[in-house]
Amino acid sequence: MKVVCVLYPDPVTGHPTMYPRDSLPTISSYPGGQTTPTPEAIDFRPGELLGDVTGELGLRKYLEAQGHTFVVTSDKDWPDSELDRELADADIVISQPFWPAYITRERMTKAPKLKLALTAGIGSDHVDLTAAAERGITVAEVTFSNSISVAEHTVMMILSLVRNYIPSHEWAEKGGWNIADCVSRSYDVEGMQLGVIAAGRIGRAVLERMKPFSVGLHYYDFRRLPAAMEKDLGLIWHETAADLARACDIVSLHCPLTPATENMFDAKMIASMKRGSYIVNTARAKLIDRDALVKALEDGHLAGYAGDVWFPQPAPDDHPWRTMPWNGMTPHISGTSLSAQARYAAGTREILECFLSGRAIRDEYLIVQGGGLAGTGAKSYATS
Amino acid sequence: MKVVCVLYPDPVTGHPTMYPRDSLPTISSYPGGQTTPTPEAIDFRPGELLGDVTGELGLRKYLEAQGHTFVVTSDKDWPDSELDRELADADIVISQPFWPAYITRERMTKAPKLKLALTAGIGSDHVDLTAAAERGITVAEVTFSNSISVAEHTVMMILSLVRNYIPSHEWAEKGGWNIADCVSRSYDVEGMQLGVIAAGRIGRAVLERMKPFSVGLHYYDFRRLPAAMEKDLGLIWHETAADLARACDIVSLHCPLTPATENMFDAKMIASMKRGSYIVNTARAKLIDRDALVKALEDGHLAGYAGDVWFPQPAPDDHPWRTMPWNGMTPHISGTSLSAQARYAAGTREILECFLSGRAIRDEYLIVQGGGLAGTGAKSYATS
Repeated sequence: MKVVCVLYPDPVTGHPTMYPRDSLPTISSYPGGQTTPTPEAIDFRPGELLGDVTGELGLRKYLEAQGHTFVVTSDKDWPDSELDRELADADIVISQPFWPAYITRERMTKAPKLKLALTAGIGSDHVDLTAAAERGITVAEVTFSNSISVAEHTVMMILSLVRNYIPSHEWAEKGGWNIADCVSRSYDVEGMQLGVIAAGRIGRAVLERMKPFSVGLHYYDFRRLPAAMEKDLGLIWHETAADLARACDIVSLHCPLTPATENMFDAKMIASMKRGSYIVNTARAKLIDRDALVKALEDGHLAGYAGDVWFPQPAPDDHPWRTMPWNGMTPHISGTSLSAQARYAAGTREILECFLSGRAIRDEYLIVQGGGLAGTGAKSYATS
Repeated sequence: MKVVCVLYPDPVTGHPTMYPRDSLPTISSYPGGQTTPTPEAIDFRPGELLGDVTGELGLRKYLEAQGHTFVVTSDKDWPDSELDRELADADIVISQPFWPAYITRERMTKAPKLKLALTAGIGSDHVDLTAAAERGITVAEVTFSNSISVAEHTVMMILSLVRNYIPSHEWAEKGGWNIADCVSRSYDVEGMQLGVIAAGRIGRAVLERMKPFSVGLHYYDFRRLPAAMEKDLGLIWHETAADLARACDIVSLHCPLTPATENMFDAKMIASMKRGSYIVNTARAKLIDRDALVKALEDGHLAGYAGDVWFPQPAPDDHPWRTMPWNGMTPHISGTSLSAQARYAAGTREILECFLSGRAIRDEYLIVQGGGLAGTGAKSYATS
């Protein structure tokens, strides 16, 4: 078989040979009991950079030993990209949300042998799921592999926005002692109302981590959480996202991008929020109206926005979210910490081992199989 | 009476007339039950900037209505500073840790009428407590007013260091899509070992907030915490700070600066830590050897340092901590968010109301009274 793998480019200083730390903590299961990936073997050292072109997700030795062809590229966006050329006779395509290979219906048409679109990470909206189902292509992702990573990133962004961290750090770096400049925008989160849109794996992990901060905890989800969990965390459920947005000081987005959620935070929704609200978005950029957001930050209706997701990706150099006021943006990295990479590289290996030997892929990894949404992994992609 | 108040300068753009948010959450008590300050009245709107010269801690109307003289200045560091001139006949001096008026024995000698040194915030190490006791000067601070603020800042810094937030934000800001550059230093905190040096109000609040992150929690304190709290949080107690430092991946400092703690993290202690450890310091700068820290970051023994405290303050423009690698520094702001200011300004007012009317100051606010360490507030300043 031929496996085409699209990964982000190496660091500008080259693929590292030395890392800040010597090892990763061992994590063997996720909240709720699902085990971390269980491939038969791995050919990488956890803690290495695996998501870049040189890292190759640690897959080359394994695939080539089995006689498969393995092509790795970061070239995906041009009309005649390496991805387009290699897809023509590819059986499997692997891609990451951070550097998404958009597997459109058009691209599928030009890839008649394609059987498996594998997301090394979570979030397969860069694949046209309807077209994949029609063509019998299996879509799978490494469910849970980086959910906790993203939840940590979210809490970091909430605290940093509300406390005005990044502008304050900039004052420390450039000299002077401008405390008043730093703190005239700095608040404690204590006592604020925090809401998550969607309380799946990531949203729940954010709620749990914010619980000791003495904030009011809110959520919107079309599936109500178990009553015991609501009680334990002291959650307030809202029937609509709009209700939640009006009630909260900080709103964090954790829903998948679907036709139903696209543009959820448009100018009207943003205007309905309290003045001085914060939005954190580690989900998908197209949940928000790009220009309405910029305007709300410029006119002071929103006090800050931190996000880890953009459209398109890579974001162009002149994307307005790079320079809008009071932003705490990162490139799409929340789910690709070295810790997360070790898990999703192992999960990618596990899925390939199953697929190539004709064994069943874990149900929780499946998004599309046998011509339709499949597996518990697909639940998030079903519209309410 | 004459009250001299040393505050930090206004923002470079001037004292604000408009704030990002319209109000603060109402908080009426701290963990454990101590009430927030209970002055008879306040003359400011919570959420305003109170800690700068124009903010005047909201005290002018009250003090002048009672016939007292009220002088506010930020000029404190020169040989003939306004502070030095005004201290000559001052009865009360008010200062903040963020812009400390160092009340030395020499300055006390030149201020024969001085009766009260009041810290608007927490941490009175800028006052020579021994000299104050000898001269019968009362030293008081607004205990607990900003402890939770500092704990939030600490969690923010822990997550930001480990996940490599600030360098990643810089990539987003300046253009490009250098994911691999960002994440080759980015880890999850999950599974790491986190230790606090001193488990007082702030240290405990940090431990509680980090508990849901699935980290191992450690502490060193010469007073052992109640067994129930140790069990509830799953804490590991260490008999010495050195033991803790060797056992942890992340060490956060929360002890006061005393002769016993000064320079605790010297070159030898830092060298004893695991390669790739992180240090967060929202306590006092002199707990750490300035140059040993810089060297450990430069040679890669430490993976990062974030701190909010410097020596001296203001830090000179060429202070090496401004530019050392992998730093997440802020000017001293963690305890002076707008939320904290509202509490410590009210607490300062409460202490003045008591002192000026001859009523007892709350026991928990007292550090020195009647010629010696006094009150529950003084506990932290007693050496083990």
